[in-house]
Amino acid sequence: MGRHFQKELDSLRSTLIRMASQVEEALRLAMRSILSRDKELAGRVIAGDDRINQLELETDYTIIDLLALQQPVAIDLRFILAAQKINNDLERIGDHAVNIAQSAFALGSMPPVAYLELPTMGELAERMLHDALDGFIHLDANLGRSVLRHDDTIDELNRKMVQQVIVMMKNDQSKIDVGMELIRVSRNLERVADLATNISEEVIFMAQARVVKHHAEDESSPPG
Amino acid sequence: MGRHFQKELDSLRSTLIRMASQVEEALRLAMRSILSRDKELAGRVIAGDDRINQLELETDYTIIDLLALQQPVAIDLRFILAAQKINNDLERIGDHAVNIAQSAFALGSMPPVAYLELPTMGELAERMLHDALDGFIHLDANLGRSVLRHDDTIDELNRKMVQQVIVMMKNDQSKIDVGMELIRVSRNLERVADLATNISEEVIFMAQARVVKHHAEDESSPPG
Repeated sequence: MGRHFQKELDSLRSTLIRMASQVEEALRLAMRSILSRDKELAGRVIAGDDRINQLELETDYTIIDLLALQQPVAIDLRFILAAQKINNDLERIGDHAVNIAQSAFALGSMPPVAYLELPTMGELAERMLHDALDGFIHLDANLGRSVLRHDDTIDELNRKMVQQVIVMMKNDQSKIDVGMELIRVSRNLERVADLATNISEEVIFMAQARVVKHHAEDESSPPG
Repeated sequence: MGRHFQKELDSLRSTLIRMASQVEEALRLAMRSILSRDKELAGRVIAGDDRINQLELETDYTIIDLLALQQPVAIDLRFILAAQKINNDLERIGDHAVNIAQSAFALGSMPPVAYLELPTMGELAERMLHDALDGFIHLDANLGRSVLRHDDTIDELNRKMVQQVIVMMKNDQSKIDVGMELIRVSRNLERVADLATNISEEVIFMAQARVVKHHAEDESSPPG
């Protein structure tokens, strides 16, 4: 493979890193718009999603060209295949940030309420995403493994959150609307964590050519 | 490309079709287990998911081998890249069928309740999945386009469903638990429809080498 090909690979990596930082920022701002009841911020997250979608399409085309014209093998091929999946995962995380920002609009029009587990879940999801992307940038499988461990924590927090909201709604019927919105945010954060986990699995695959899907290393985990 | 390569492509297609029919069956049985309050059936869906996960892993390895050893181009490359994504989408649909089956367990332990939009949503999601897969088998972009149109319908049904359940919970606090479970099923069906839509986008891409993500043909659709 020549110097030109290496340059194209570097450019693919840079585009993904740029997209990743935009998606991270979208998630961070979406959570801030919830916690600080800031509708203007929520609007910015929603408006910014077009740029992320555009980057996804561009990256998809770059990957197809790379595969078709260069016919890469071994480590380069693994990188490109992982990049394709990570590209898709990032775009989906962007969609969840938009959903969270939409909830910020809805919550901003309701009386203030306790956010229960949401701040913790938000921080954890952001950290998982950050570590997953750091793992990708530095090809560090260990960062990936730490993300995989946190996924169970956030699933547990989501379950706890749903239970707490159900109790809240049973105690005070006027909290049903706001409760539904809190659960919506919780579920979106849980999906972000799932996607960060997908990214880490791809990173580990890339780094070690080893598929760790379905937590093959941990046979005791329950079905999703 | 030689006869051996063509044989491997055929085998990849067959594996995906086999996996698709198992996923379709899982979704059908999961919805039946809800509507007929059949916990034994729900258990079968949950138990069957391992087989689907296994097929996904096998297919992933087949794809990596095909790309690394054969270096396909043009139409074959497009098929293989689409197959990789469809494989991943099918596995996720299998996970949603498991979630629905888990809700069937929960609902089976509660007093019977009206299912509101769920039967309609279930039929529509099954039909979308079937058409998406038919489009893949016959490389028929038109079937794909009909799936894309139905996606808005199921989003609308999901919104309607959530509103109806909120009214139900407000009128009768003892319905909060069952209401939350109904919304969970509705959201899983909506995700299945999203994934069927992804599959159709891949089929159209394969058939026409044209990316139709983000409903590029319909600029008026709101953010996800």
